[in-house]
Amino acid sequence: MTRVAHATPTAEPVAARPVFVGTTFLSDPPRQLVLADGFRFHHGDTLAPFAIVYETFGLLAADASNAILVCHALSPGAHAAGKYAETDAVAGWWDGLVGYGKGIDLAQYFVVCVNFPGSPWGTTGPATIDPATGAPYGSAYPEVTVEDMVEAQRRVADHLGIRRFAAVIGASLGGMEALMWTALHPERVGALVCMAAAAAVPVASVAWHLIGRKLIEADPAFRGGDYYGQASSLRGLQLARMVGHMTYLSPPALERKFGRRRRGGTRQFEVDSYLEHQASKFAVAYDANSYIRVQAAMDEMDLEEQFGTLGEAFAGFRARALLVSFTTDWLFPSAEMGRVAAALREQGARAEHVDIATPNGHDAFLVDCDLITPLVREFLAAR
Amino acid sequence: MTRVAHATPTAEPVAARPVFVGTTFLSDPPRQLVLADGFRFHHGDTLAPFAIVYETFGLLAADASNAILVCHALSPGAHAAGKYAETDAVAGWWDGLVGYGKGIDLAQYFVVCVNFPGSPWGTTGPATIDPATGAPYGSAYPEVTVEDMVEAQRRVADHLGIRRFAAVIGASLGGMEALMWTALHPERVGALVCMAAAAAVPVASVAWHLIGRKLIEADPAFRGGDYYGQASSLRGLQLARMVGHMTYLSPPALERKFGRRRRGGTRQFEVDSYLEHQASKFAVAYDANSYIRVQAAMDEMDLEEQFGTLGEAFAGFRARALLVSFTTDWLFPSAEMGRVAAALREQGARAEHVDIATPNGHDAFLVDCDLITPLVREFLAAR
Repeated sequence: MTRVAHATPTAEPVAARPVFVGTTFLSDPPRQLVLADGFRFHHGDTLAPFAIVYETFGLLAADASNAILVCHALSPGAHAAGKYAETDAVAGWWDGLVGYGKGIDLAQYFVVCVNFPGSPWGTTGPATIDPATGAPYGSAYPEVTVEDMVEAQRRVADHLGIRRFAAVIGASLGGMEALMWTALHPERVGALVCMAAAAAVPVASVAWHLIGRKLIEADPAFRGGDYYGQASSLRGLQLARMVGHMTYLSPPALERKFGRRRRGGTRQFEVDSYLEHQASKFAVAYDANSYIRVQAAMDEMDLEEQFGTLGEAFAGFRARALLVSFTTDWLFPSAEMGRVAAALREQGARAEHVDIATPNGHDAFLVDCDLITPLVREFLAAR
Repeated sequence: MTRVAHATPTAEPVAARPVFVGTTFLSDPPRQLVLADGFRFHHGDTLAPFAIVYETFGLLAADASNAILVCHALSPGAHAAGKYAETDAVAGWWDGLVGYGKGIDLAQYFVVCVNFPGSPWGTTGPATIDPATGAPYGSAYPEVTVEDMVEAQRRVADHLGIRRFAAVIGASLGGMEALMWTALHPERVGALVCMAAAAAVPVASVAWHLIGRKLIEADPAFRGGDYYGQASSLRGLQLARMVGHMTYLSPPALERKFGRRRRGGTRQFEVDSYLEHQASKFAVAYDANSYIRVQAAMDEMDLEEQFGTLGEAFAGFRARALLVSFTTDWLFPSAEMGRVAAALREQGARAEHVDIATPNGHDAFLVDCDLITPLVREFLAAR
């Protein structure tokens, strides 16, 4: 979420020996794949040219057999792990899981993370200048689908010469992308790791998402999406983020972290101050047009609706799968991963579902890397 | 929530023989108690004159021993039961529990329901004309507390000559009012029935409430509270209601009622259409100034903070208590009623906690009257 994710893409060769800052390594700058002919969205629109920003971590084996695709979720980008420079305040968003000696061990695996279409983090997005008008795409940027996210990842895989990933891994929306891979390109998925996700967002979570989008649209400063250069930060996006943020947390975690405490000397609840602070940071960095498109993509994905049944969706997938849920995740309740596991098993895949006990809600996939690490490590080792 | 609650107050005598429309009786019109000297709010402001609107149901015994106070929650008013006229589309908000032959049997009990200060339903509120300015109080209307709600109820009780209520009963915010009665006037509470409430709103629910209030305040048409005559309905209030509405429902209830179904022939989720429809109705009828004050009153109540410990708050109460929670109510989780029951027992009260299994979330106190009725009936009969 920091602007550092906008570092200029490069084509320099991958550094052979990683340099470390504590347990975090220095990662390569983002790269970009420019599609001169453009990118055709699932719903039919084409934007040209179209730049797909991605990052890679570790070294690709000569036979490209050690590549793992890590799919990112709504708010982060391609910078999954490492720091660009020692002075970076924070490392990549899944640095707890991806790194040298970590759950996804870069000493063994080559990790690819692709910033998906619609995101504000480098790939041609709503804020990108439309060469035809000289102004940002804004409201004219197409509707985005999870299929588009997978397609962008597929283009990068082809570009890197990766025919089949050793594993496709993601959590939250990233987990939904991973499921979409097994449905669209099962032959390219060596193994699946999907966390805190579902084959379709459950209705209660759809409703929270819809409310968030309505908050953005209700902000007059949003101007239907054509607000660039008008406002540095939208209150509507801040409010949407607060709603979103709440769905990532759990009541027990809030109880432990804040309770009903007030900020010293004031009547303001600490939780209020926290939500405002986080929302304010988010709304400065993130793009409201991206928010509504990416979240809508999540809500519109429904493998059952799209393929008839979950069985049909997973019919081509016979490899191993690890489905992980978190007991206090009420955005994607554990039963959803259970359903996916059952449907995969019915199709002949070796699917294991692990429900991790944690108070950290949906955010557990970021917070509880210590609990996830042994699961992922053993799953990958057993391939 | 219908405008019918604004029927003109009267001082006519109580009808002796109820007239029925099906199982629902025709209730008396609202009454009002006008305090010429005004009402002094807990935080120090006084508004004068001040009209308190209330309704009564059934007949008060000569010794006033059969009076039950029913406390209303955020959105309804004093019209707890019955219809004013046969043509009314809906009956009072707790008609499932209060009536002749019902859980709170009007053949035996005299029920009082007082519209609390801050509400838009008749009692002097933010939309009332300030005689000093000739304009609505608007943003100048005082901050409201649960103590103010109890005080208005106490004034009506004194006016009606009710020294001690056979029972004080409420759910949600109404349940918090009932708890506040046991803390402030324990000698006047013959028995306590408190449902779907807590001695303080838990932090996760505080956060949802705060977000709702921010949505109203972010609407430029709200004008800091001085919007009367400007807008017929505020989008900010609609959005706040959607957030509120979601906290009253449960994921299983949403799953059963809507699932991921779309409205016929469109891509709009049914749940979206439902939330918009309900919010739109609410925002036409309810007052945004009332909403922010009444909900803040809820969040600010904290018996532990105000009395040192729950034990201190309940120290004067030795009567019987029935605490009811609902398994899928995540706004006021069952554990909160359990804590209240334990604290009451420690002080020598005979407190029973019943956790009702239902998919209907916080709304269960309105929806599941069939499950509540036997509990309340037996509890009252055993006095």
